[in-house]
Amino acid sequence: MSENLFLKAVHKKPVERTPIWIMRQAGRYLPEYRALREKHDFLTVCKTPELAAEVTLQPIRRFGFDAAILFSDILVIPEAMGQNLEFLADHGPKLSPPIRSQAELDDLRINTIEEKLQYVAEAIKLIRNELTEKTALIGFSGSPFTLAAYMIEGKPTRHFKYIKSMMYSQPQLLHNLLKKLTRAITDYLKLQIEAGAQAVQLFDTWGGILPLHLYDEFSANYLKKIAADLQSLGRPVILFSMGGPDHLSHLAGSLAQVLGVDWQTDLEQAKIVMHPEYALQGNLDPTVLYGSKEIITREVERLLKIFGKESGHIFNLGHGIPPDVPLENVEHLVQEVHCISSELRK
Amino acid sequence: MSENLFLKAVHKKPVERTPIWIMRQAGRYLPEYRALREKHDFLTVCKTPELAAEVTLQPIRRFGFDAAILFSDILVIPEAMGQNLEFLADHGPKLSPPIRSQAELDDLRINTIEEKLQYVAEAIKLIRNELTEKTALIGFSGSPFTLAAYMIEGKPTRHFKYIKSMMYSQPQLLHNLLKKLTRAITDYLKLQIEAGAQAVQLFDTWGGILPLHLYDEFSANYLKKIAADLQSLGRPVILFSMGGPDHLSHLAGSLAQVLGVDWQTDLEQAKIVMHPEYALQGNLDPTVLYGSKEIITREVERLLKIFGKESGHIFNLGHGIPPDVPLENVEHLVQEVHCISSELRK
Repeated sequence: MSENLFLKAVHKKPVERTPIWIMRQAGRYLPEYRALREKHDFLTVCKTPELAAEVTLQPIRRFGFDAAILFSDILVIPEAMGQNLEFLADHGPKLSPPIRSQAELDDLRINTIEEKLQYVAEAIKLIRNELTEKTALIGFSGSPFTLAAYMIEGKPTRHFKYIKSMMYSQPQLLHNLLKKLTRAITDYLKLQIEAGAQAVQLFDTWGGILPLHLYDEFSANYLKKIAADLQSLGRPVILFSMGGPDHLSHLAGSLAQVLGVDWQTDLEQAKIVMHPEYALQGNLDPTVLYGSKEIITREVERLLKIFGKESGHIFNLGHGIPPDVPLENVEHLVQEVHCISSELRK
Repeated sequence: MSENLFLKAVHKKPVERTPIWIMRQAGRYLPEYRALREKHDFLTVCKTPELAAEVTLQPIRRFGFDAAILFSDILVIPEAMGQNLEFLADHGPKLSPPIRSQAELDDLRINTIEEKLQYVAEAIKLIRNELTEKTALIGFSGSPFTLAAYMIEGKPTRHFKYIKSMMYSQPQLLHNLLKKLTRAITDYLKLQIEAGAQAVQLFDTWGGILPLHLYDEFSANYLKKIAADLQSLGRPVILFSMGGPDHLSHLAGSLAQVLGVDWQTDLEQAKIVMHPEYALQGNLDPTVLYGSKEIITREVERLLKIFGKESGHIFNLGHGIPPDVPLENVEHLVQEVHCISSELRK
């Protein structure tokens, strides 16, 4: 830990500059990623430890981020539980059959998670071997509610008709699925930690489709249970919810160490409410990377000044990096975070 | 006004029950609407005063809502300004050419808005003639930022790459478009009010894609300017932003009378912060209408109890009604709002 800026910031220790990694940093905006994907389809990359490791390491080599995040997909869990997973060009992921009854839920298996997802453990070991102490390795999973949304809808959706119908007509059935997923996700993250992940992030991507008064019941309570169950392993947990500021405040009181702040949430406000309790990770609007270098600098400076010399900030985007941002803007971003935060922290 | 519950609630006068209308109440969930649309395409309905009037009145006949909202589309303004507008099946609206340069912006005309949108004034006159005093007629427009998003992107988008690139690299160009739209929208709403609209709603549908620290500059200030410019006409203005609770609080201090509250915002919280200043409209999660009657009742009761006997609440959904909700659930909703609010207000 002594060498690692990311882990220092997670534990709110002083750092000489603010660490940075970016969500979806291993991905399509990188020419070396696109070159590899021309030879291998997405799921093959996820399931082949050598390829997953290579793709995970690409952004580290290019930009020297302070943390690597395992290249994988949150939907490997539903697949390991027995749903059929396909990635259709232009249509996104398809899970079949969609889970809409207790019988379909009963067919899902969770006792084989470790065995089925062994390829992830293998990838983590390979990656950890290649990284120096300076770069932390982050594992991840989707949150129970987010995975449930994909599993119940079966395909990308705008209205989330099926999961919300279930929530508003058969809430117990939804809870049964969420409980099963909570066990599966906990086992999966333990597997990742035991293989070498030094922190794990839970992506609550769809938490924001819950009205605030139902967020605890259907998402936050499950996130907190997972964070509590992982505590004995001694590795930090990052909770990232895309639900905006009010949802974020419902994550108070968990045993996680870090909150990911989405770009629609005001970081200054989030700091006032949540920073005494958590380190914060975020939250540049990803589309700033479409902008001019001058404005990238202005926005980086604005965010870094919110923390100033204070510890407990990990720079990141407030959502995944879009696939078509100019590489030179990412370079500029990293350079500015390094320079400006070093200056501020002097 | 003496007979009209909606207008009474707008002005925070006592009412014997809470008024209700629902966003997108004239639309595809109604069999009589679908029947009419089999004979006429969407834009023809918008542009033919008799058809627009008929469709506007359909939900009033069926459900007795306390307000009718003009049937139209927010994109008639860009069309009147000179962009070509098409509705492509399964692909949504297309505006061409997209506005991405000062030259393209200069080609947009705003001095012919009144003339080009005369069909809207005609529809409003027809509708007003058919409604009794009990039912208010609401006109509407998209907000400057929301219309700019459609005009710059040209077609439906997830990332809003072009408008956000412009905002982060040529902010002045975006302001030039927003200013032009502000004038066009003000003229358009004046036309609607003069034709008989008793209130107007500004839909800031895409305000939430702005990070909070840029919301005033690129959206809220323009909304406030329009509300101020309309004040002399003496008709109430409703501001509806889909941006969540923090964006909503940035609308403090406008001359509008009502704030529309989206379903992701906690109504109780919104009331604490904004109700002394504004009447509030909203905010049932539209997907509750996919649920059981029992849960519809529970959610209606929860929202109505936030106001109890207090005036200044207009019941509505927190976003447009989805096209495939069961009609009997809408009936149940209306009946429950009537019964429960009458009881609470005794």
